[in-house]
Amino acid sequence: MRRILLASATLAAPFLLAAPAQADEGMWTFDAFPAATMKKDYGWAPDQKWLDRVRASAVRLTGGCSASFVSPDGLILTNHHCVVECAQNLSTQQADLVANGFIAARREEERKCPGQQAEVVTAITDVTADVKGAIGALAGEALVKARDAKIAEIEKAGCKDTATTRCQVVTLFGGGQYKLYTYRKYSDVRLVWAPEFQAAFFGGDPDNFNYPRYALDASFLRAYENGKPVKVAAFLKWSPRAPQPGEATFVVGNPGSTQRLFTSDQLAFQRAVSLPLNNRVLSELRGRLLSAMEQSAERKREGGDTLFGIENTLKVFIGREQALNDPAFVKVLADNEAALKAKAAGNAAIGNPWGDVAKAVGAYRDLYLPYRFIHPMSDLYDYAQSLVRAADERAKPNAERLPGFTDSQLPLLEKEVLDERPIYPWLEQLKLEWSLSKAREALGADDAQTRLMLGRESPEGLAARLVGGTTLADPAVRKALWQGGKAAIDASTDPLIAYARQLDARDRELQKQVDERYQGPLAAAGAKLADARFAAYGDSVYPDATFTLRISYGKVAGWKERGQDVAPVTTMGGAFARATGADPFVLAKAFVANEAKIDKSTPYDFVTTNDIIGGNSGSPVVDKDGAVIGAAFDGNIHSLGGNYGYQPDVNRTVVVSTAAVQQALERIYPASELVRELSGK
Amino acid sequence: MRRILLASATLAAPFLLAAPAQADEGMWTFDAFPAATMKKDYGWAPDQKWLDRVRASAVRLTGGCSASFVSPDGLILTNHHCVVECAQNLSTQQADLVANGFIAARREEERKCPGQQAEVVTAITDVTADVKGAIGALAGEALVKARDAKIAEIEKAGCKDTATTRCQVVTLFGGGQYKLYTYRKYSDVRLVWAPEFQAAFFGGDPDNFNYPRYALDASFLRAYENGKPVKVAAFLKWSPRAPQPGEATFVVGNPGSTQRLFTSDQLAFQRAVSLPLNNRVLSELRGRLLSAMEQSAERKREGGDTLFGIENTLKVFIGREQALNDPAFVKVLADNEAALKAKAAGNAAIGNPWGDVAKAVGAYRDLYLPYRFIHPMSDLYDYAQSLVRAADERAKPNAERLPGFTDSQLPLLEKEVLDERPIYPWLEQLKLEWSLSKAREALGADDAQTRLMLGRESPEGLAARLVGGTTLADPAVRKALWQGGKAAIDASTDPLIAYARQLDARDRELQKQVDERYQGPLAAAGAKLADARFAAYGDSVYPDATFTLRISYGKVAGWKERGQDVAPVTTMGGAFARATGADPFVLAKAFVANEAKIDKSTPYDFVTTNDIIGGNSGSPVVDKDGAVIGAAFDGNIHSLGGNYGYQPDVNRTVVVSTAAVQQALERIYPASELVRELSGK
Repeated sequence: MRRILLASATLAAPFLLAAPAQADEGMWTFDAFPAATMKKDYGWAPDQKWLDRVRASAVRLTGGCSASFVSPDGLILTNHHCVVECAQNLSTQQADLVANGFIAARREEERKCPGQQAEVVTAITDVTADVKGAIGALAGEALVKARDAKIAEIEKAGCKDTATTRCQVVTLFGGGQYKLYTYRKYSDVRLVWAPEFQAAFFGGDPDNFNYPRYALDASFLRAYENGKPVKVAAFLKWSPRAPQPGEATFVVGNPGSTQRLFTSDQLAFQRAVSLPLNNRVLSELRGRLLSAMEQSAERKREGGDTLFGIENTLKVFIGREQALNDPAFVKVLADNEAALKAKAAGNAAIGNPWGDVAKAVGAYRDLYLPYRFIHPMSDLYDYAQSLVRAADERAKPNAERLPGFTDSQLPLLEKEVLDERPIYPWLEQLKLEWSLSKAREALGADDAQTRLMLGRESPEGLAARLVGGTTLADPAVRKALWQGGKAAIDASTDPLIAYARQLDARDRELQKQVDERYQGPLAAAGAKLADARFAAYGDSVYPDATFTLRISYGKVAGWKERGQDVAPVTTMGGAFARATGADPFVLAKAFVANEAKIDKSTPYDFVTTNDIIGGNSGSPVVDKDGAVIGAAFDGNIHSLGGNYGYQPDVNRTVVVSTAAVQQALERIYPASELVRELSGK
Repeated sequence: MRRILLASATLAAPFLLAAPAQADEGMWTFDAFPAATMKKDYGWAPDQKWLDRVRASAVRLTGGCSASFVSPDGLILTNHHCVVECAQNLSTQQADLVANGFIAARREEERKCPGQQAEVVTAITDVTADVKGAIGALAGEALVKARDAKIAEIEKAGCKDTATTRCQVVTLFGGGQYKLYTYRKYSDVRLVWAPEFQAAFFGGDPDNFNYPRYALDASFLRAYENGKPVKVAAFLKWSPRAPQPGEATFVVGNPGSTQRLFTSDQLAFQRAVSLPLNNRVLSELRGRLLSAMEQSAERKREGGDTLFGIENTLKVFIGREQALNDPAFVKVLADNEAALKAKAAGNAAIGNPWGDVAKAVGAYRDLYLPYRFIHPMSDLYDYAQSLVRAADERAKPNAERLPGFTDSQLPLLEKEVLDERPIYPWLEQLKLEWSLSKAREALGADDAQTRLMLGRESPEGLAARLVGGTTLADPAVRKALWQGGKAAIDASTDPLIAYARQLDARDRELQKQVDERYQGPLAAAGAKLADARFAAYGDSVYPDATFTLRISYGKVAGWKERGQDVAPVTTMGGAFARATGADPFVLAKAFVANEAKIDKSTPYDFVTTNDIIGGNSGSPVVDKDGAVIGAAFDGNIHSLGGNYGYQPDVNRTVVVSTAAVQQALERIYPASELVRELSGK
């Protein structure tokens, strides 16, 4: 799920911002923290040593989350919703780690999360000249290919040891800058502590992206290497104290994607085409899954993580659609664009990138539906496609491969394909039925691509045949196909491998067209827009989010909602007051059982003005002393428009306090060893 | 379902058109047929006698469809999809009239359709002066109340015999005209002949609103009175001949609703608010229902009609959303508005109704979500609300009642409430769970209306309690409550009656606010806009559709789709060529069994340029001789934008030919008595 949903966000290349950052706005790179501005506003700003230590403590989780080291023994703080897929994968009908939570009493009981990898930035190198040099005056698909080849080369040269390091070139400012991020990576990550789902997600989907909140959305992982906990050089001091209204806070993490300088044509495409479509089809999937899960307790358990992902994405997309349909909000964006255009007017070197983007978006309108629907949603299909493509791509020179299959990217892909984790056939079939029927609906029953995808079968019949016949759920089968390469793939009679082979040529052809008519032109125009931006606003700007490490500063503060003050901090007692006894406002069992022990005045969740977005989940919230006082787990409803622009008056980050986690570790889900470790004793 | 879905369309008061009608455009009232224009374009136009006879043969079905008498014995031609709810209601697990079709070999076997009523217009009287006089200079809710009181009075005075006549005042041109329609009504309507669902709806949802088509979407009903077939004075001659490309065709029926002179603010509201919301929530309902129906063959059968209704509505709404997101389409509408504004400029009597509409729409934005979600979707809830409200309303003087409860409207409501028909508890529960959870999602968990609707229960818990505890599925219970009036309602302990009582005050309060701030201002502005329109374009305009009788002229013609000619007529052999053997492209059993007998060259479906919209389903397609050559059952995909504007080049009506129906009556679903009756022998 997560992969697909992030994919739809990353289709859109990031662009630079329209106007200089204002009041707490900004997801800053660590090499460009605006210390002077912060000092002016707050009377204080961190120094380089502070920044370096915090940066070295920050962890990226490849599942799509952020985190931080909080002990010298590789202990990692993140959100519960960042480990729920792991807990789900480790669960059985007998032992439900999602519903009941998980506490490893000893390190030996800590359990490996399938597919999970933790990464820490160790170096950032500017490679803009190299990549721009390789692009030269190329255009369209040729530009994309030259750029990707150079990136593959730089990444390979940068990380000789792919077992412990990972190199990734990041496009910033939509092509204005390229930077090589080098990571120390830990591919053995284990689950240490997780509360009950009902404690972590109290209020469920209705409360998601809302506030006040009463959610214990926190968990602990641990990084391992060679079977042992890793010793880390830097970690954040654990400070389970109450957040103070008005105090400065930093959020350090990996915001996934923002689109704050999309041109008006790109925004119009989202408003008029992609968001309405995706909100409809995801809503239908949500409905299909909700009904299917009602059939048995087992299905309810097995589908839980997928349902959460769908509902979360849907809420994000609905928030975006509403922001783009809000005339006042859109006017600010349009004014920003007009101001930048005015400043760039007459600069021949910049030309008219807005017009180039408009043309590219026009071309993309024609390509969007087939491109959107060529890839059916199914974990098993993902395996099949990865195996089929890896067999082809690995036979090519590094620089000629598709981006996900270069030498620097292959180790993570291999881990994701080969790690053992449960597959639920009913869920695979449901997702396939849905994606195939939505593809037919969008393209039409008589479309050539529909015929390629369905032949003479129905979505239901085809899905049943593929899921019923494949053996790809078995990791040993996947391993044999991965290692067997092209010969093994060609010889395979697995129906899903055959199906992935059947779609592959069309999929590649669509990518080629998208690169030629959309991504290539966007990359060229993006570089021009970045030039215009730098010329107009200098270094007062930050790049759009790219799921790379950023730091945001702000403060603990509520806001005014329809004239009413929203207090910034809730207490654990509030959860008891809010509980109705009906799902999803049922108290977790351990809360009920331990009510007498719980200090109800303990701060629970709180809000800050920090500027974050999806991908920041699990980010440590750090105080001036560099200690962690919470983990960001959500934004308020106004933060959803933050994809396009930050609204200082109302955009808020929602945080679970370390004070509440400490209370839970001591009295609700007791973990004395963890308490000791966090206290540094 | 149908009631709810029509309701969302009728929330919007109709407005007059923006510009004079062009080329085959127009849903004309019978008292204003543009004979001169047609004669100019076609060299021929019908005379008054032709019009009178056709009008007297046209039938409205209160379920939301059109139809026509085709024999002197009250035989009615309509679409299969207009009788599918009846077939569903008459089915059991043992006898599935939807899947297997239905043929009454003798009249005694014809079966009464629950809730169905057939109506024929007998008179149209202009009552504009009366209604406008009652409105005077009133505004807001007072305007609405005065208007509705006058309408109730006129209707009551017009139809003394409510057992055989029905009076209905219709608002035309958004308040520019008011006309009293008098109907001869037949409240005993019986099913005579229906093909298999798979023949009627071959191609299913993927083919719906598409063309070429191969669907036998036709059925026959018969009107009864006093237990006997009615003798009707007028009927259409049955002409099972091939339609000729280019020949003139008339569609005579009841288009439900168009919004062709909505102002730009009204369109923006639909584009930005109501359509995205409704497309999302209906998509989720579709998904919930699809999964739930997969649980058993019985549920698949029971949910079929509801699923069809949802998917059909969804396709309509998606088409509207896409039309309003098409810049070229919207520009035409905006240009029309600008032209009308220019013509009205300086006319003090007209003033600025566009500004008044903008203000009303602004107010409606604030009211929309609570108003949209106060009424949970459930047949059982509909019964409960009707019973609770009827008890209150019937105690009031006629002119003070809510519109649906006046003396002229009560007989149909009573029939709908008391007629026996099956209720499927699982389906009721599913719809309730969905509507309650969507209400909470839209309003927020802490909203006062959410609390009123849910209390401390979950949507699932509340739905289970209400459906599990109610006895309203029993028509005897409903009858006792209807007849018992307020005392019986007050004494009832039925949980759904209690729930309807619980919501009623809020529901009425919302209606009051909507009348005061939205409907009242719209009605006043609508009258001004009508004046502007009449002043600018005289009688070259037709009113927006209002589910009252209209006539459209056009011709048999294909169109160009992306440069390719689409041929206007398909053949029955085409169905065999298109069948894949996989749902929904499976041939009906009787088609397979009788393949050798079927003349594959028989014309099957065809397209015409007639201007129609939902509600026209089942309309006779009449030739110059006044004979019926088909039944309109669909529009092509371009017809969906027809809600806002007719596009002569591409907007097409899709028709099942009488030739195909004749073939079916003779060789596929043999009904020799019917063949004889239709032949007039």
